[in-house]
Amino acid sequence: MGVLRLAHVDITVPDLDLSTAYYTEVMGLLEVTRADGAVYLKCWDEEDHHSLRLRYAPRVGMDGFTFKVEATDDLADLESRVERFGVPVRRVSRGAELGQGEAIRFETPSGHVMTLAHEIEKVGRLTPKLNPAPFVSGLRGIAPPRMDHLLVTAEEVGEASRFFIEVLGFRLTEQLLDGNGHQLGTWMERSHSPHDLAIVTGANGGLHHFAYWLDDWDAVRGAADILAYNGVQIDIGPTRHGVTRGNTIYFFDPLGTRNEVFTGGYSPDPDFNVITWTEDHIGKAVFYYEDRLNERFLKVHT
Amino acid sequence: MGVLRLAHVDITVPDLDLSTAYYTEVMGLLEVTRADGAVYLKCWDEEDHHSLRLRYAPRVGMDGFTFKVEATDDLADLESRVERFGVPVRRVSRGAELGQGEAIRFETPSGHVMTLAHEIEKVGRLTPKLNPAPFVSGLRGIAPPRMDHLLVTAEEVGEASRFFIEVLGFRLTEQLLDGNGHQLGTWMERSHSPHDLAIVTGANGGLHHFAYWLDDWDAVRGAADILAYNGVQIDIGPTRHGVTRGNTIYFFDPLGTRNEVFTGGYSPDPDFNVITWTEDHIGKAVFYYEDRLNERFLKVHT
Amino acid sequence: MGVLRLAHVDITVPDLDLSTAYYTEVMGLLEVTRADGAVYLKCWDEEDHHSLRLRYAPRVGMDGFTFKVEATDDLADLESRVERFGVPVRRVSRGAELGQGEAIRFETPSGHVMTLAHEIEKVGRLTPKLNPAPFVSGLRGIAPPRMDHLLVTAEEVGEASRFFIEVLGFRLTEQLLDGNGHQLGTWMERSHSPHDLAIVTGANGGLHHFAYWLDDWDAVRGAADILAYNGVQIDIGPTRHGVTRGNTIYFFDPLGTRNEVFTGGYSPDPDFNVITWTEDHIGKAVFYYEDRLNERFLKVHT
Amino acid sequence: MGVLRLAHVDITVPDLDLSTAYYTEVMGLLEVTRADGAVYLKCWDEEDHHSLRLRYAPRVGMDGFTFKVEATDDLADLESRVERFGVPVRRVSRGAELGQGEAIRFETPSGHVMTLAHEIEKVGRLTPKLNPAPFVSGLRGIAPPRMDHLLVTAEEVGEASRFFIEVLGFRLTEQLLDGNGHQLGTWMERSHSPHDLAIVTGANGGLHHFAYWLDDWDAVRGAADILAYNGVQIDIGPTRHGVTRGNTIYFFDPLGTRNEVFTGGYSPDPDFNVITWTEDHIGKAVFYYEDRLNERFLKVHT
Repeated sequence: MGVLRLAHVDITVPDLDLSTAYYTEVMGLLEVTRADGAVYLKCWDEEDHHSLRLRYAPRVGMDGFTFKVEATDDLADLESRVERFGVPVRRVSRGAELGQGEAIRFETPSGHVMTLAHEIEKVGRLTPKLNPAPFVSGLRGIAPPRMDHLLVTAEEVGEASRFFIEVLGFRLTEQLLDGNGHQLGTWMERSHSPHDLAIVTGANGGLHHFAYWLDDWDAVRGAADILAYNGVQIDIGPTRHGVTRGNTIYFFDPLGTRNEVFTGGYSPDPDFNVITWTEDHIGKAVFYYEDRLNERFLKVHT
Repeated sequence: MGVLRLAHVDITVPDLDLSTAYYTEVMGLLEVTRADGAVYLKCWDEEDHHSLRLRYAPRVGMDGFTFKVEATDDLADLESRVERFGVPVRRVSRGAELGQGEAIRFETPSGHVMTLAHEIEKVGRLTPKLNPAPFVSGLRGIAPPRMDHLLVTAEEVGEASRFFIEVLGFRLTEQLLDGNGHQLGTWMERSHSPHDLAIVTGANGGLHHFAYWLDDWDAVRGAADILAYNGVQIDIGPTRHGVTRGNTIYFFDPLGTRNEVFTGGYSPDPDFNVITWTEDHIGKAVFYYEDRLNERFLKVHT
Repeated sequence: MGVLRLAHVDITVPDLDLSTAYYTEVMGLLEVTRADGAVYLKCWDEEDHHSLRLRYAPRVGMDGFTFKVEATDDLADLESRVERFGVPVRRVSRGAELGQGEAIRFETPSGHVMTLAHEIEKVGRLTPKLNPAPFVSGLRGIAPPRMDHLLVTAEEVGEASRFFIEVLGFRLTEQLLDGNGHQLGTWMERSHSPHDLAIVTGANGGLHHFAYWLDDWDAVRGAADILAYNGVQIDIGPTRHGVTRGNTIYFFDPLGTRNEVFTGGYSPDPDFNVITWTEDHIGKAVFYYEDRLNERFLKVHT
Repeated sequence: MGVLRLAHVDITVPDLDLSTAYYTEVMGLLEVTRADGAVYLKCWDEEDHHSLRLRYAPRVGMDGFTFKVEATDDLADLESRVERFGVPVRRVSRGAELGQGEAIRFETPSGHVMTLAHEIEKVGRLTPKLNPAPFVSGLRGIAPPRMDHLLVTAEEVGEASRFFIEVLGFRLTEQLLDGNGHQLGTWMERSHSPHDLAIVTGANGGLHHFAYWLDDWDAVRGAADILAYNGVQIDIGPTRHGVTRGNTIYFFDPLGTRNEVFTGGYSPDPDFNVITWTEDHIGKAVFYYEDRLNERFLKVHT
C-alpha cells in the first residue's frame, strides 16, 4: 500500500482573481469552491475535491503539496516511518483542510511542506456513473483530465530524494548524474507512471512546476494554440523529454508559476531498473528536440 | 501489494510457423526464444521475459494466463486465500516455466488456468538504461509497446468475477447489467488502468481476446493500415468503447484468436466508484460509434 | 481556367428546423441567412456566401449542385461547350440565387441540375484579414473548415463521366472497372485534390453524399465522438478509402441525406496517370479496412 | 493555365556523399539517379523525375529553382511576358536537364535563377496505378510525400514579389508590412495552397529554406523524433506559423541549408483577399507559439 498518487498542489498568488481566471478560462479547470481567501480547483476527470488550491498571499510561492495514500492504515505507518527518520510529524485533523479527512504533515529534507491524506471528499467527475459518454463536450480552455506530477527543487537532490525513496516508498525511475556521480535530478513514482514527483538542483523549498496530463500529442498542439491565443508565455515546447519520453509544453501562469502539460511515458514495474542520464547528455535528457536547456529552466522557480 | 499486472497469455496454435510469422511481422513482437514446441514473444517496451507464448497444439485455444505479483510474499498470501476459497492450488517450481521463478497455479471458477508469479527474468526493453532515446526506430509491423489486458468468457460472470475481486483483490471498475441486475460483463483492474481483466458471458474457460496497448489514436490508424495491408481480418474498428473510453480495433490472428489494439481510458483510484451500464445501452457500452454489437463479438471466442 | 471547385450543394428537406438544427449544432456550420423557405449555411473557413442550401420540400432530395469557375469568361466558354454537346443551357441572372452573380445552369447526362457561377458574394471566414490567429476557438459541433466534394449516382457512369471530363474539363484520377472494363465508379478533380466530384452506379439524378474536409485523423475521431454523442447514425467508419487514400466517416443527417467527413488524399497534377481499381478489389477500393462494401453504401442515396 | 507548382530546387553542396546520406537516410528521399557530379532525389509520392538536385560545389548555395507549368503553350506565353518585363530569357533545350523537356530560364529581379518547364519525365510514385494500397510501408526516415514550397530572400521584397505576381501570375495570399507599409515578407501561391513561394527581406539570390509537406501534426512529431535521433540541428519547432497557419519544424541539413517540414494551411481561391500582418505582430506571424523570431531565422540563409 502506501503513497498512491499526487492529490493536490497548494500555491500562493498575489492576485486571486487573475489567477483563478487563468486556471479556469485558459487551463480549463473547474472551480469547486472558494473559502477563506482560497480557491479550490479540479480537472474534469478527477473525482476528488480539488487538485489545486490558490491561496492569496503577497508573494507567489507554494504552501505545500499533498499525496493520497491507498489505505487509512498507511497514515499511521508512514507517520512512524517519517518520525523514525527524525522528521517531526503533525496530525492535521479532519476538516482542517477543505474536503479532507485526517492527515499527517511534515517538512521534507528538501524544505517542502508535504501532507499525506487518505480520505478526500469525492466531488465526482463530469462523466456520470450510469451509461456515461466516453468524453465530455463543451469544456473551455485546455481542460486536462487530471493533474499528473510535480517537480520541486532542492539544494541536495540526492539527500532529498533518499527521504522520498527510503521513507515514503517512492521508486526511482530516472536520474541525472554529474561527472562525480552526484544526482542533479531524480524522477520518482508511486503510480506506475514515469514520475509522480521529481527533484532538480535548486533552492530548498522551491517549486519548479506542476504538470497536467494530456491524452496525446494532438492535445498538446491544442494546448499550445490556446496558450498562444491567450497570450500566455510559453517557456518551451511543444517538445519532448528524453527523461520520461513525454511530450510537453512548459509555460507560466500570469503570476509566474510554471505549469506543464504532459503526455506519454512508459509503464514501470516496482522492480524497474533505473535509467541513468549523464550530465553530458543533459540537453537530450531534458529537451530531446532542442538538445540544450534554456536558461529559464535552470533558474526560474517559485 | 498483491497482483500487479497481466504478465503473459499462453495460447495454443495448430501452425506455429504461421502464427509466429503473424505475431512478429504483422503485430511486430520480438521473438525471445523457442523451446519445446513453443515460441516466446514480447513487446519492445516490455522488460520481462515474454508476454505471449504460442504452443503447438492441434486446436486453437488457451493454456492459461499469468499475472505478476508485486512481492515474493504475495504468492504465499494469495495461495492461502485461493485455497481458503476452496480452489486447489499447485506450486510451479522455479524454471518449470521459461524465465519464471516459483509460481502458484489454479483453475478459476470461470474455468481458466491462472498462474501468479513474482520473479520473472528481465530480458530488457529495446531502449537502453543509459541516456536512452525516447523511442525505438526501425520496428516492423504494429509494434505495440506492451500487452495491456485480457478478456475471458464465463457462464456466470458474477460468480466468476467475485473470485477475482474477493480472493485476488481485483477492483471492479465497470459492469454491464441485464434487466434483472445480473452481471453480463465486468471490467476489473489492479494496475490503476480501466481494466487488466474483463469477463463477459460465454463458455467457461474461453478467451475472447487479449489486447495490446497503443500510445494514441494515430497509432490505431497505423495499426489498421498494417492489418489491412497484410490481409488480416478486422472484426471491428477503428472505433471507441463506451466502457473504458478506449479507442480500439478487434481483429483475428491467422488461426482465429481475437486480438485487440487499445488506447485511452482513465485512471481509477482503488476507491473508484463503479460505472454501471444497463443492457439497453449495450451498443454504446461496447462500440460507442456503431451503437450495436456485431454478431461475432458475442459468439466467437477461442 | 475553367471550373475551379465545388461551390455549394442544394438539398431539399421535409423538416427545415430539424435539418438546420443538425447542420448547425452537430455538423457545426454557420447559418448565413434564411430566405424564401431556404436556409443558407457555410463552414467557418469558407469565404463565399454558402456551401449548403436547405430548401423545404415534402421529400428529401437534391435541387442541384454548383461549381465555381475561375474567371468571368469561363461562363461563356463553358456555356458554348455544353451546348455544343447538345445539352441546353439556361442563364441564371444575377441575384436569382442568393449571393450569386450571373450563372449558367443545365441538366447533366447523369440527370443532375448543375450550375456554374463565378461571382459569389464573399461573406468572409471567421478569421480576420489582419493579424489573424491561425484557428478559431469556441466552435460548436464538428465544425469542418470547408466542403470538399460530392458523389452522385448515374445509370451509365462512363457516359455521365465523359460529359464532365470532355465538356467541363474535369480530370479523371481514379476509376473502378467491372470485368468487362466498364466504369462502375469514377473520381474526377478540378482543384488538384483526388476528387471534387465522383460518380457511382445508381439511379440518374441521385445524390450519394457530400463531404466535408477535416484537417486530420484526430479530427475524424472528434467527429465520430460528436456524431455518436448526438445519436447520429454512422453508416461506416472511422475507416479508410483505398480510392483517394482518404480517412472517412459516412453518416446520415436526420432526414436521410448521407454526409461524409474526409481527410487525406494526394496531390495530382493535371497530367496525373489514372489509378484503376478492378471489381475484385472493390472492397479495398471503397473501405480499405473492412475490405467489403456494406449494403447501404450500394443501395441508399437521395 | 500558367505556373502549376514548384517542381524542384537545385542546391550546391561541398560534400555530396554526406548530403546524399542525409537526404536519403534522415529526410527519407529516394535517390533517382546520379550524373555529372549531381544527385537527383524525389519524395515517394512524387511522380516527376526529381524534386531536389544536389550538385557538388565548394560552397553551399542554390543553383536555382524550377516551377512546372500546366501546358506546353505556357512556356512561350510566359517567355514573352518575362521578356516584356525586361528580363532576358534563355531557352534550355530538351535533355539539357535530366528528365526535363524544353524549358525557359531567367534571373528574377530578386537575383534567383528560375526555370519553367512543362515536360518532366514521370518516374512514378511508389504506389502502383492498379489497385494500390493507400500508403507505402517500410520507408526510412521522415519520408515526406512531396516537396511543398520555397522561401527565398531579396533586398526589395515588394519589387521582387511584383515580378512573380504581375509577370508570372502568382497570387499574393499574405504579406508582412513594416510601419511604412513596405513589404518585409510576401507569401504567394499558384497551387491553391497558402504558398508555393515566399520572399523575406535578405540578400538577393538567397535561399532561406525549402519545405516538405507532411500529412499531419503527428507526422511532425515523428519528424522531430527522427531529426533529434540523428543529431540534426533543429532551428525551431515543432511550432506553428501565424502566416499560413501551418505547423512546422525548421532545421539544417549537415551542410547548412535550412529545411522545413510543414503541414496545415488553408485553401485560397484565386480571388482570395490578402491577409496582412503588421510588424508589431511579427512574432505571432512567424512563430505563433513563441511570439518572437529567433536570431537565426532572420540572419541565416544560403
